[in-house]
Amino acid sequence: MLSKLIERIEQKTAVIGIVGLGYVGLPLVLRFNEVGYRVVGFDIDEAKVDALKGGRSYIEHIPAARLAAATETGFEPTTDFSRADEVDVLILCVPTPLDKHREPDLSFVVDTFDSLAPYLRQGQMLSLESTTFPGTTDEILLPKVQTRGLSVGDDFFLVYSPEREDPGNPNFTTRTIPKICGGVTENCLEAGMALYSKAVDTVVPLSSTRAAELTKLLENIHRAVNIGLVNEMKIVADKMGIDIYEVIRAAATKPFGFVPYYPGPGLGGHCIPIDPFYLTWKAREFGVNSRFIELAGEVNSTMPDFVIGKVVSALNQRYMSVNGSSILVLGIAYKKNVDDMRESPSVAIMEKLRDLGALVAYSDPHIPAFPKLRGHCFDLSSVELTKASLSSYDCVLLATDHDRFDYDLIKHNSKIIVDSRGKFLGAAEHIIKA
Amino acid sequence: MLSKLIERIEQKTAVIGIVGLGYVGLPLVLRFNEVGYRVVGFDIDEAKVDALKGGRSYIEHIPAARLAAATETGFEPTTDFSRADEVDVLILCVPTPLDKHREPDLSFVVDTFDSLAPYLRQGQMLSLESTTFPGTTDEILLPKVQTRGLSVGDDFFLVYSPEREDPGNPNFTTRTIPKICGGVTENCLEAGMALYSKAVDTVVPLSSTRAAELTKLLENIHRAVNIGLVNEMKIVADKMGIDIYEVIRAAATKPFGFVPYYPGPGLGGHCIPIDPFYLTWKAREFGVNSRFIELAGEVNSTMPDFVIGKVVSALNQRYMSVNGSSILVLGIAYKKNVDDMRESPSVAIMEKLRDLGALVAYSDPHIPAFPKLRGHCFDLSSVELTKASLSSYDCVLLATDHDRFDYDLIKHNSKIIVDSRGKFLGAAEHIIKA
Repeated sequence: MLSKLIERIEQKTAVIGIVGLGYVGLPLVLRFNEVGYRVVGFDIDEAKVDALKGGRSYIEHIPAARLAAATETGFEPTTDFSRADEVDVLILCVPTPLDKHREPDLSFVVDTFDSLAPYLRQGQMLSLESTTFPGTTDEILLPKVQTRGLSVGDDFFLVYSPEREDPGNPNFTTRTIPKICGGVTENCLEAGMALYSKAVDTVVPLSSTRAAELTKLLENIHRAVNIGLVNEMKIVADKMGIDIYEVIRAAATKPFGFVPYYPGPGLGGHCIPIDPFYLTWKAREFGVNSRFIELAGEVNSTMPDFVIGKVVSALNQRYMSVNGSSILVLGIAYKKNVDDMRESPSVAIMEKLRDLGALVAYSDPHIPAFPKLRGHCFDLSSVELTKASLSSYDCVLLATDHDRFDYDLIKHNSKIIVDSRGKFLGAAEHIIKA
Repeated sequence: MLSKLIERIEQKTAVIGIVGLGYVGLPLVLRFNEVGYRVVGFDIDEAKVDALKGGRSYIEHIPAARLAAATETGFEPTTDFSRADEVDVLILCVPTPLDKHREPDLSFVVDTFDSLAPYLRQGQMLSLESTTFPGTTDEILLPKVQTRGLSVGDDFFLVYSPEREDPGNPNFTTRTIPKICGGVTENCLEAGMALYSKAVDTVVPLSSTRAAELTKLLENIHRAVNIGLVNEMKIVADKMGIDIYEVIRAAATKPFGFVPYYPGPGLGGHCIPIDPFYLTWKAREFGVNSRFIELAGEVNSTMPDFVIGKVVSALNQRYMSVNGSSILVLGIAYKKNVDDMRESPSVAIMEKLRDLGALVAYSDPHIPAFPKLRGHCFDLSSVELTKASLSSYDCVLLATDHDRFDYDLIKHNSKIIVDSRGKFLGAAEHIIKA
């Protein structure tokens, strides 16, 4: 079975099924299409499948033309999960969020698997790419596959190979980002290596799916903790009257032993604020605490309040209250140069300012209208930045430092700028570092 | 006054006084000597001064020949602080340890300054290189200089420019490591930039001495926290039966957003375990906490116990107690490839093992005999590693992974290896990862 699957992969007669056509799945679809595989793309969202069938893109950095080219050369998007039996490989790229109690919500993984389960067959491989806690593949997926009468390692192959997408990063593509892979058995690993080697330049084998699961978490924990650290340092430096951005940039001139991370108005995106808590949750099962993760979560989640404190004090110095003031938030995407608003701290900041009575507006060149988000509601369009528009607000708050902003224009036409990104260098009376 | 001092620096007629002839001061002596300055080296330790006069080195990576060459070309070591009035520039490179209550001990800085104070004169510059809390230069040195009737910025120049030495790092030298510099006034900064530009390729000006002080602390806080994080991850992974070293190496294949730090048996050296608490102490004055620093300190200081727990359990599995077992500790320097034992966790581990009744020996190619350390006493010489010697110990504990060790020899001739550095790859029954 293994050699047959590998042969189909090598000869590119294998059909690749990718489940979940979002920020992770779609680039993978395009990459497997590019190297010559027939790809079936599964998603429960009919709107997405219709868009793809019509050659339309719903992700800013994926051009519609590439999607159209893919659908013309064998990429078939579908909502019909029964077609899973057509494919040789199933790659799961579904979200793994947290629930309301900040605990892992594996329902997308489990529900997706359960929808596919009736159509699994001998000779297939299944790869999970979603970020998750160590043990997910072994403890949750493996028994489910076995229940189907399949013998993992013999007639079915199960691997964990986490995505490492970095939307908006121009220096790396799906092909050039090394990919790690762990298998439930040696045969599983061999199948996984054979598959991903066709699409990715460097595939790094690990000794187990657990090691691969922890690797992905560690990558994001590292970021969350380092950002937490500089956010705490920002608070300390602020009290001491020192510009933390100057300090970090100076420390970054050290050619070894230091890597700069920059503070901000809080953590955003689908990975860094969420993934670390998958380990926290699992660690408790073993009676150990992940205190760095907890501390980073705590510090990072206070940052919107720190920024709002700076807005309040800047207005107060001019004998104004937030209540009744007009405030323009610059950048509502969670990081610069993308159109992704998932977990964006800008939204939390806008809501808090509105609750305090501010008249809130925003400008974001990547997001023309405030989208409908679960639990968040603003009926707003992006304000065009001009001398007139900027000078009409009592306060301008830089939340996300997109390259497309005209910082000179902002600097010279805003009454007050609260800068939560260290973008404005040097001292100026109307610029408050936050 | 400023232009006169800068002229003397430019023409290399300025005499450079370096105070404190240890790991930081001595390389600086050699560098200023190398570029053509007359250098007077001050130290209170007569043994050091005698060694230097005799052309002998007391630091492994500084060859005696270089010292001899320096003394032949104008370097004068002395214990006579009254000669401070001969020099144009005074650079303070003295230790800044912690006291018993883990609070900053500035006595070396203060005592050194007080010894020099009677000989300070107009036209001089003083630079502090010791790592310390933000405000040290402004709040402690500046008033002391002013008490001498000198006007800082006009007829005397005061800067803070922290050392960034990395003993044993073959890739960087004093010349090639960029140096940051902050001045009490604009003139002070100008003098500091003029001085260091003669010796160092890149000098980075900062807006204040406080910013420069915090920069140096941030560099070491970053390391302490990142090492704390991976040490905590080691504890978590150990409970889950996952090899953290495999995980970190795999995460390091990600080409962006992740930087590997490796766990160990605890923090050592004169910087990383100590410096961060300088900020903790100062932050309290402002009513803020540096919780990442506290947490890192807490986790890192438990690591020797973690390692000892692994020794206990490895021996226990063989029906042996630590009490009465012979244990060979490999590596007692605080990091690999150096002979520096300051704050080395190996010493704490050896003491704890001895307290438990073990017969403790050590091997370290860089340290032939256990030196006399304050509060620590072992009458031991380094054991030569041979088949016979290795196999004679009940347990071998790798504490510091010097490159000079023959790891194959160790692997094949030790009864039990407790590896606290992730040096031995793969699984083997007699190798315990700690």
